[in-house]
Amino acid sequence: MKAGPSQEDIRRHNLGTLLRFVHLRGPASRATLAESLGLNRSTIMALTADLTAAGLVREELPRGPGRRAGRPSLVVRPESTRVYVLAFEVGVDRLVVARVGLGGVVLDRREGVRARGSDPAELLGVLVAGARSLVRKAERDAVCVGAALGFPGTVRRSDDTIMFGPNLDVGELRLGDALSRRLGLGIPVSVCNDANLGALAEHERGAGVGCDNLIYLHGDVGVGGGIIAHGRLLGGDEGFGGEIGHMIINPGGRRCACGAKGCLEAEVGERALLHHAGREETPGQAGRDAVRDVLASADAGDIVAREALHRVGAWLGLGVANLVNVFNPGMVVFGGTLRDIYLGAAAQIRSVLATGALAAPREKVRLRTAALGDDTTLVGAAEFAFAEVLADPVQVLTRLRAPEDSPV
Amino acid sequence: MKAGPSQEDIRRHNLGTLLRFVHLRGPASRATLAESLGLNRSTIMALTADLTAAGLVREELPRGPGRRAGRPSLVVRPESTRVYVLAFEVGVDRLVVARVGLGGVVLDRREGVRARGSDPAELLGVLVAGARSLVRKAERDAVCVGAALGFPGTVRRSDDTIMFGPNLDVGELRLGDALSRRLGLGIPVSVCNDANLGALAEHERGAGVGCDNLIYLHGDVGVGGGIIAHGRLLGGDEGFGGEIGHMIINPGGRRCACGAKGCLEAEVGERALLHHAGREETPGQAGRDAVRDVLASADAGDIVAREALHRVGAWLGLGVANLVNVFNPGMVVFGGTLRDIYLGAAAQIRSVLATGALAAPREKVRLRTAALGDDTTLVGAAEFAFAEVLADPVQVLTRLRAPEDSPV
Repeated sequence: MKAGPSQEDIRRHNLGTLLRFVHLRGPASRATLAESLGLNRSTIMALTADLTAAGLVREELPRGPGRRAGRPSLVVRPESTRVYVLAFEVGVDRLVVARVGLGGVVLDRREGVRARGSDPAELLGVLVAGARSLVRKAERDAVCVGAALGFPGTVRRSDDTIMFGPNLDVGELRLGDALSRRLGLGIPVSVCNDANLGALAEHERGAGVGCDNLIYLHGDVGVGGGIIAHGRLLGGDEGFGGEIGHMIINPGGRRCACGAKGCLEAEVGERALLHHAGREETPGQAGRDAVRDVLASADAGDIVAREALHRVGAWLGLGVANLVNVFNPGMVVFGGTLRDIYLGAAAQIRSVLATGALAAPREKVRLRTAALGDDTTLVGAAEFAFAEVLADPVQVLTRLRAPEDSPV
Repeated sequence: MKAGPSQEDIRRHNLGTLLRFVHLRGPASRATLAESLGLNRSTIMALTADLTAAGLVREELPRGPGRRAGRPSLVVRPESTRVYVLAFEVGVDRLVVARVGLGGVVLDRREGVRARGSDPAELLGVLVAGARSLVRKAERDAVCVGAALGFPGTVRRSDDTIMFGPNLDVGELRLGDALSRRLGLGIPVSVCNDANLGALAEHERGAGVGCDNLIYLHGDVGVGGGIIAHGRLLGGDEGFGGEIGHMIINPGGRRCACGAKGCLEAEVGERALLHHAGREETPGQAGRDAVRDVLASADAGDIVAREALHRVGAWLGLGVANLVNVFNPGMVVFGGTLRDIYLGAAAQIRSVLATGALAAPREKVRLRTAALGDDTTLVGAAEFAFAEVLADPVQVLTRLRAPEDSPV
């Protein structure tokens, strides 16, 4: 129970809200900002002046065919090339580092294959090298305001530590601290579960814009989940929330990597589909390509592949039914390999949903595929990294610009 | 994306925060309030003066043995007998109406048996008669600031309508509107799912005070659930959230009242326990007493009863494991008949939890019984009813005191 904010808190909040608006929705005129934020134009002018002085936005004539005759109204535009974050994705078999500018523009990126069995030191080395090469190519006066990394496993948010994940069997790994130290940019690196970031990304920039109760399901080798409840990422007590892949829906079913049996992941993950399609043992058959091969075969009339897909689809439908009953979400978004499985087995999913979910919460739920495609995690990491500067824009910029240019 | 609050918003927020503090934690000195709310003493004095003028609190000498020598510090005390709400509970087989004063004091109550097969008009009549008799006995200058009703079924929060529930097979019933009109107190009556209210109650006044991520499971004929995430009741898009009883954990298992098979409710509800104990067909065997009889038999060494209890306990453990994985809650609270089942089968529950839940979110979760016993729903209804006056104390009081005394 805390008392209301001070004048300074309110100014900070308003600066952040204005910056967030142009960051998420793009350049906007003062009139639009005044109307959308419910503030008068003189306040908007003062806030814009502060953000301009800090180098976060600039005002300029509108571009493109939207210009009308008469005196043009200036638009407030985020300084995308001067203010950026570093977004990292450590996938099961790929590594991506991107420099993402304010406004969500991917300015530059490095991508590579993640070797199976790579050790943490090697992983760290590749990430640091990629990030440094991106930072080096940034404009001389550009400033990095945050960094975040998505990982397909269990992450302890309190200290950005990886607890458990595929292809990285090293016990606890304080990846955030290590990466931050090696980068030497004077900013912390947040580490988050990839599907949590996917939920954030689809909520802010993807299929679920405007939907405040959204569930994101991401398929890869495993199945991850992220939950947006009342517009906010549901983290639970320690940030482990959203492990929907380990909801047990078939006790006594297939063995899961977590040790339990019949988890959603065990029944709808990559291995389940390949197993049912009789392709588990085929050399070279793994990953998203293998899943797509099964779907292509099903589409071409292969009965075994079609049966496998329908079987996995039915389990996925059961999982979705449970989520609909427990959360009453406005939308469920399928990403990664689950995007393809949803598209190939939508009828089975909807059929099980119709019998397994209560009528009331089922009626209005929308099922959608991820709008951000393979970049959901990366976009989510960038959004997560921008959070601090959006909460307190001028303060953060002042602090980051104060020391010498970064040593990188 | 909304701009920061105005001065008036802040004053309202601070008035509400102070009132909420003494409402939930009891009488407090100005010094305590200043420290707890992070406001200076002159602001506390001004806020207290406003709340006193509105008749919501009074300042007086501290009572009891806590008094120390020297000049005593005045304490701010909620006006419990002058400001109250009406809390209704429509249970499967009981009806309760209570007059609950600011500060959470149950001032008076009426309780009756709910006849099976009672029609809505009859139900409404009993509730209205109970409420009127309570209002008549209130002090002459007392004011009713809100009303809420808990119901063990599916409720559409947007218009306080009962969609579905046991022992009330009438299609949609706009109980909130009907009750509000018949009471004629000039206040709306909110209708909520009972386990949602139970979660609220245990979070604010029960086992889960201070725990911002809490799951409440309530057993009766059915199994209801309420979820507190980040300190807030999770309602989902239309307020149907929290139907944990209809999470399917045993596909192909026992038929549930909702039509699906193997819902948590079907596997751990009253009927499942009585069935496994071979007591389903015994005349007069139903309700909480029947559940307690099975538990007593198990305790006395009856092998069939013990087996039944352990079987139900294992399914309950599986449900809890799923909740732990999906939500990472700090606490799971068992109420109603699940309280007794938890106490009788804690070993089975913990054993399944140990294998079914991921280590990271499992380590710190606490399992607890409801601290408010049979009154969780009623206490939750009262808290829900107080929400409006706590959000904007002076405005609400001014409005309610303006017309003639209520016509009841």
